[in-house]
Amino acid sequence: MVALNGGQGLTIFFTGLSGAGKTTLAEALQDRLRAIDRRPVRLLDGDVLRRHLSPDLGFSREERDLHVRRVGYLASEITACGAIALCAAIAPYDVTRREARALVESVGTFRLVHVATPIEVCERRDVKGLYAKARSGQLTRFTGVSDPYERPGDAEIVVNATEVTVEEACAQIEAELGATGLIGA
Amino acid sequence: MVALNGGQGLTIFFTGLSGAGKTTLAEALQDRLRAIDRRPVRLLDGDVLRRHLSPDLGFSREERDLHVRRVGYLASEITACGAIALCAAIAPYDVTRREARALVESVGTFRLVHVATPIEVCERRDVKGLYAKARSGQLTRFTGVSDPYERPGDAEIVVNATEVTVEEACAQIEAELGATGLIGA
Repeated sequence: MVALNGGQGLTIFFTGLSGAGKTTLAEALQDRLRAIDRRPVRLLDGDVLRRHLSPDLGFSREERDLHVRRVGYLASEITACGAIALCAAIAPYDVTRREARALVESVGTFRLVHVATPIEVCERRDVKGLYAKARSGQLTRFTGVSDPYERPGDAEIVVNATEVTVEEACAQIEAELGATGLIGA
Repeated sequence: MVALNGGQGLTIFFTGLSGAGKTTLAEALQDRLRAIDRRPVRLLDGDVLRRHLSPDLGFSREERDLHVRRVGYLASEITACGAIALCAAIAPYDVTRREARALVESVGTFRLVHVATPIEVCERRDVKGLYAKARSGQLTRFTGVSDPYERPGDAEIVVNATEVTVEEACAQIEAELGATGLIGA
């Protein structure tokens, strides 16, 4: 079987609201990739990234942009190593996501996955209790409640994580990436 | 020939004063590694790192520490990909360098290279004109002039870049790393 990806690096960037299921999906995809792809896989999770890269930053537009740029830089370095970076970050602004894409595409491949779970569903789940805090005003600048989320127009893959299971959503991503030879070598 | 490094990742961290020759040496080693080692090599240069990771930070102890921690995190991710990270950063504080080491050693190998060029030599060269600015007070908190540099007690390799050429210093590092099977596979 021919390795269509040629051993090139790849970043899969999951964007979406808090509680949309980005991390869960990235973790499931990580497990699958470890089974079907020889390249090293690095999961860059939003909360961990904040702790390592931006413990000093808040959630203003400028601070969010600065953080997402750092995530993009880290992902581009992993991609340049011929590995696979899975990023899970809200990344609410279009122009900043495109900056991350451009940086990664200078050294490899970038795919944007929009985890398009509706806010009503995210809020109903409210796994971390953050929506409740945002509604009560305890948390300010909360994406989808008191801060904007710009829906991506450039997502290669859109996942509706409401109507499908994690396994189904993961299989969808695997099929779409596999169809163009980007994974499975 | 047996690949003694087992394909494991490696970070080589160059610390030293401004103008000590860290970047020049890292670039020379990068060229050598590309000739003798199959792993991807990523050069993380101080100035570029500042631009990508910490454009918002100054040079207080807290800000320097935060920056060096980010560099350590980035290096650990590259190391985890089974690649080689060459970091060139002043990194003046012992405890922060040791933090970077610990993070990298959780996923691979870390070697500290102290580029121990005496300050008189760095200042005489003054390639970027920074020492002149530091002496005149135009630049504050300048390492070696108005800010501390803690000489490492844990450097595996010490390079005296005054008495040797770049080629000789590079050959010294190559020989020391090669002797323990860390490079050349």
